[in-house]
Amino acid sequence: MSLSYEERAKSIGITIPKAATPAGSYVPAVQTGQLIFVAGQGSMRQDGPAFKGKVGQDLTVNDGYEAAKLAALNCLAAAKSVLGTLDRVDRVVKVNGYVNSAPGFTHQAKVMNGASDVLVKIFGEIGRHARTSVDVSDLPLNIAVEVEVVLACTS
Amino acid sequence: MSLSYEERAKSIGITIPKAATPAGSYVPAVQTGQLIFVAGQGSMRQDGPAFKGKVGQDLTVNDGYEAAKLAALNCLAAAKSVLGTLDRVDRVVKVNGYVNSAPGFTHQAKVMNGASDVLVKIFGEIGRHARTSVDVSDLPLNIAVEVEVVLACTS
Amino acid sequence: MSLSYEERAKSIGITIPKAATPAGSYVPAVQTGQLIFVAGQGSMRQDGPAFKGKVGQDLTVNDGYEAAKLAALNCLAAAKSVLGTLDRVDRVVKVNGYVNSAPGFTHQAKVMNGASDVLVKIFGEIGRHARTSVDVSDLPLNIAVEVEVVLACTS
Repeated sequence: MSLSYEERAKSIGITIPKAATPAGSYVPAVQTGQLIFVAGQGSMRQDGPAFKGKVGQDLTVNDGYEAAKLAALNCLAAAKSVLGTLDRVDRVVKVNGYVNSAPGFTHQAKVMNGASDVLVKIFGEIGRHARTSVDVSDLPLNIAVEVEVVLACTS
Repeated sequence: MSLSYEERAKSIGITIPKAATPAGSYVPAVQTGQLIFVAGQGSMRQDGPAFKGKVGQDLTVNDGYEAAKLAALNCLAAAKSVLGTLDRVDRVVKVNGYVNSAPGFTHQAKVMNGASDVLVKIFGEIGRHARTSVDVSDLPLNIAVEVEVVLACTS
Repeated sequence: MSLSYEERAKSIGITIPKAATPAGSYVPAVQTGQLIFVAGQGSMRQDGPAFKGKVGQDLTVNDGYEAAKLAALNCLAAAKSVLGTLDRVDRVVKVNGYVNSAPGFTHQAKVMNGASDVLVKIFGEIGRHARTSVDVSDLPLNIAVEVEVVLACTS
């Protein structure tokens, strides 16, 4: 019998966190037809921001990579809170990454690979997604990275 | 007989504005299948920007909240221009907010609650959406907030 | 017999470029149902960034317009790499533009018309889309403009 996506994640040392409470009057994710739109998730842990500050100034590219990975896992937590299980995920469709960057920082793609790589590790071929990465000059709570995803799911 | 969404809005003092003419060579909203993608709408009134400048510098968080609310209402105006009536809205799926922020400003979530709260006031449970809020360092015409939404509709 | 979209483009002097290799661990575009989500594409040519720097400082509005046009054509290249042919495009649904802007620059809409205008030239009425334009303070590789699109296609 094949592993569930969560079991596969666990087998490579990755735990899907608990979904965070939204920071405002919205919900973590919405399903419409076979698409799931996940709310932007930050590089947060249960007890607050795990990576704070600007990549290229307060944080290294490698810190940013880890921040993007954490934000992507928080997106999966948000999706799971709506889907019940990640095994209903059919495809990771789109990932958008907003990187809190020092002026002149241009390595957003390296940072956002932290999100992309972990999605492909967990989901394999169906984890391969289209992606947009941009710089922003500030993010809520001074988090380092914010990631949002669109998933396709079985109905 | 139940109120239409526009009547419900009016009963709590909210008027859906007229759809603005796009600021460039595009259209206010596009329906594809049961999704409506609404073009980014600013904190504008018929006669121009209603909230100009950076939140946390030129504008207070409360001003920003009102600007986000206005931008969200302009999104509904754009959707209505395509759907004919807001009563065809099935779900507010996704809201993205771009907040024109002073350097170091990190209360985007409080600002964007202005958009989220008014959507929930008008649509109730189906108004609850996934959301992403980011800071930007400038916006077209120096408006304070730009909001875009994805809606699901009955066909 | 009517022209294909690529033939129509060629007849007005526009060549659809070859799809670029993604700058990170992601794919150029993903189809899900009848939607295509295209990854953010920059103002790049095969040999690197064609327009570098900030609009309103290093580049004029007209340069920005050309950069947005090039980025939009790269989006079509990415879509074609998944669809096989642009003739399966049913509608240009949504365009998001991120403009690498000088502080205080507020003419993003004029810049992004470079993307919108070329899409309408190629696709005609079905090229008319919803759009969001925002400023960003930096982009990957210091490109001038990044554009992402959502397309609807025949299945």
